[in-house]
Amino acid sequence: MSKSRLEAFSDGVLAIIITIMVLELKQPHDTSWEAIKPLIPVFVSYAISYTIIGIYWGNHHHLLHTVTKVGSGILWANLHLLFWLSLIPFATAWMGESNFDTTHVVAYACLQCLCGIAYFILLRTIQATNPNNKTLTYALQRQSRKGMLSILVYFIIIPVSFWNTAVSVCLFVLVWIIWWIPDKNIEKALKD
Amino acid sequence: MSKSRLEAFSDGVLAIIITIMVLELKQPHDTSWEAIKPLIPVFVSYAISYTIIGIYWGNHHHLLHTVTKVGSGILWANLHLLFWLSLIPFATAWMGESNFDTTHVVAYACLQCLCGIAYFILLRTIQATNPNNKTLTYALQRQSRKGMLSILVYFIIIPVSFWNTAVSVCLFVLVWIIWWIPDKNIEKALKD
Amino acid sequence: MSKSRLEAFSDGVLAIIITIMVLELKQPHDTSWEAIKPLIPVFVSYAISYTIIGIYWGNHHHLLHTVTKVGSGILWANLHLLFWLSLIPFATAWMGESNFDTTHVVAYACLQCLCGIAYFILLRTIQATNPNNKTLTYALQRQSRKGMLSILVYFIIIPVSFWNTAVSVCLFVLVWIIWWIPDKNIEKALKD
Amino acid sequence: MSKSRLEAFSDGVLAIIITIMVLELKQPHDTSWEAIKPLIPVFVSYAISYTIIGIYWGNHHHLLHTVTKVGSGILWANLHLLFWLSLIPFATAWMGESNFDTTHVVAYACLQCLCGIAYFILLRTIQATNPNNKTLTYALQRQSRKGMLSILVYFIIIPVSFWNTAVSVCLFVLVWIIWWIPDKNIEKALKD
Repeated sequence: MSKSRLEAFSDGVLAIIITIMVLELKQPHDTSWEAIKPLIPVFVSYAISYTIIGIYWGNHHHLLHTVTKVGSGILWANLHLLFWLSLIPFATAWMGESNFDTTHVVAYACLQCLCGIAYFILLRTIQATNPNNKTLTYALQRQSRKGMLSILVYFIIIPVSFWNTAVSVCLFVLVWIIWWIPDKNIEKALKD
Repeated sequence: MSKSRLEAFSDGVLAIIITIMVLELKQPHDTSWEAIKPLIPVFVSYAISYTIIGIYWGNHHHLLHTVTKVGSGILWANLHLLFWLSLIPFATAWMGESNFDTTHVVAYACLQCLCGIAYFILLRTIQATNPNNKTLTYALQRQSRKGMLSILVYFIIIPVSFWNTAVSVCLFVLVWIIWWIPDKNIEKALKD
Repeated sequence: MSKSRLEAFSDGVLAIIITIMVLELKQPHDTSWEAIKPLIPVFVSYAISYTIIGIYWGNHHHLLHTVTKVGSGILWANLHLLFWLSLIPFATAWMGESNFDTTHVVAYACLQCLCGIAYFILLRTIQATNPNNKTLTYALQRQSRKGMLSILVYFIIIPVSFWNTAVSVCLFVLVWIIWWIPDKNIEKALKD
Repeated sequence: MSKSRLEAFSDGVLAIIITIMVLELKQPHDTSWEAIKPLIPVFVSYAISYTIIGIYWGNHHHLLHTVTKVGSGILWANLHLLFWLSLIPFATAWMGESNFDTTHVVAYACLQCLCGIAYFILLRTIQATNPNNKTLTYALQRQSRKGMLSILVYFIIIPVSFWNTAVSVCLFVLVWIIWWIPDKNIEKALKD
């Protein structure tokens, strides 16, 4: 079984998810600059989701690059991940429209937990299908650690949102930082 | 003629079909958890269609993987299949919005019959174009059997919906199970 | 310059054009079968455009398959074709919604003329860039002839629509037939 | 790391951006030709954005074609570029709907500046990752010069829009011409 179609399909779905979120940025019918103001939370919400999906795409790219065997288990684990990711545009629009209302930030964090868990399942399925691939094992260890850490942060966001949603947004940015820093380490490891 | 573009185009259309269905999940303007309640049937309807399209994608992937000759017959049979699949977002939204009304479940099951028949035509066209491909013949036999069985279930769903639509939903899940189980057998056969 | 990205981008745009047309098939809020009736012209309009774009995709596929040199002239001629094709969803929705009103059928036929001319320009650009490619020359001759014939039919549809739009729809189906029949001949020629 | 997925993902996002802009061309419910008149600025706005994105796609294609090493820096610089490009449909719709109101043309020009700067960052990141690639260096020099020139024009458009938005539209067309002419020179250079 070829992994090229798996990559192409995932790229297609991720590209569409990222782009249809923009459809929620509805142009105001007013011609003044003030008309843009209510769009700011929608824009912030879009920027958060765009970056999260960008991170998923980058990691997915790194992960599948070293995979050599693709079975139907991986196909289904991947479809399962894409299912939860496909709900991000809905949660993003809901969070942005209500200007980061507590309920909606909690819903968004819950969805991110589910996406994180689905990514974790994909990692484990890939590991089980490719047990003797050393570069993959190394990448998997790092991604597992980072994955667990970000699921933990999403879990922390849930109670925090009841107290202050601005802190929740900062914690989403923290997840970006978790993923950004060690990416270079994986690349270094792949070079050695 | 190359099959890579056929795969790329099909992947593109399937990825878009899967993703535009999410656009029907319209965020409520209320900020309470109760506001999500009317979205539950829309979500269930989306999950059913997502899985069905996922199954089509997986089977399409398995099928084309062993194909060596692609003629214009296959191009058209494939476009014909994508035509009926492209109507799934409409039927899904209609079924979800009305909370699984009898008429809409019947319409959805009829569309699934048409998709199943279109997939069957694609199978036959591929078989006619590649008569001496052994691994393909084996995969085709299995997929034909499963294909006929699922068209049969869709036909049964039509009268059942007039009696109880909850049973219809269970029968849609039965179709998933039909396709999930023997996938591994095909892979085993391909390995031998 | 590689033609794979040109193909991938064209496939992407065509796949999205084909799929966003379905978004015009808006589900009625009524639960009866009669509620579907006003959707019939929208559906017929969608089926016409789906087939026309399917024909463009098939021919584009045949054409680029034999191309060996891709210059920026071809890139721009291709983008020009995709520009007019991208307006088809608008014209389709307009024609379907008004139940094949004369004005809208004329607008649709005019757009098809522009698409046809843009395809013709692409053919000529490819011919100029690849002058010594024999299989390509043969395919180009056939496609030029069919292309001119279909532009002619679209021109005939314009006055015919003022008299009877049902005849116009039949003429659109005639264009399908023009393209369907000789496709097999090209394949035969490519085999020899 | 493979550049094929980077290209595929970028193609996907650009194809969707180009196509969802058409969704703003909403068909009027009237059946007369006059009903199309208010759509003319929306159409002009769409044509401007289509061409700009077409230019970005062409340049992106030229640029990545000569790249041999793709690191995570390039992945992120590319995602950053796609982020600003993904906002073009919003700015296009806003500019078209208000019939080229001063505020909206200024907003559109600002967004184009940001896209231009993001492309510039991508150029520099690619240069830093591939320092000894001669054909790339040549292409980069030309694209840097043209890139800076077009950012300059976008900056000029901002004050000009307060005076006359028709001149702004002409300046957008000037940017097209800047990019169209020297493309052939790059190709010539790549041939030598």
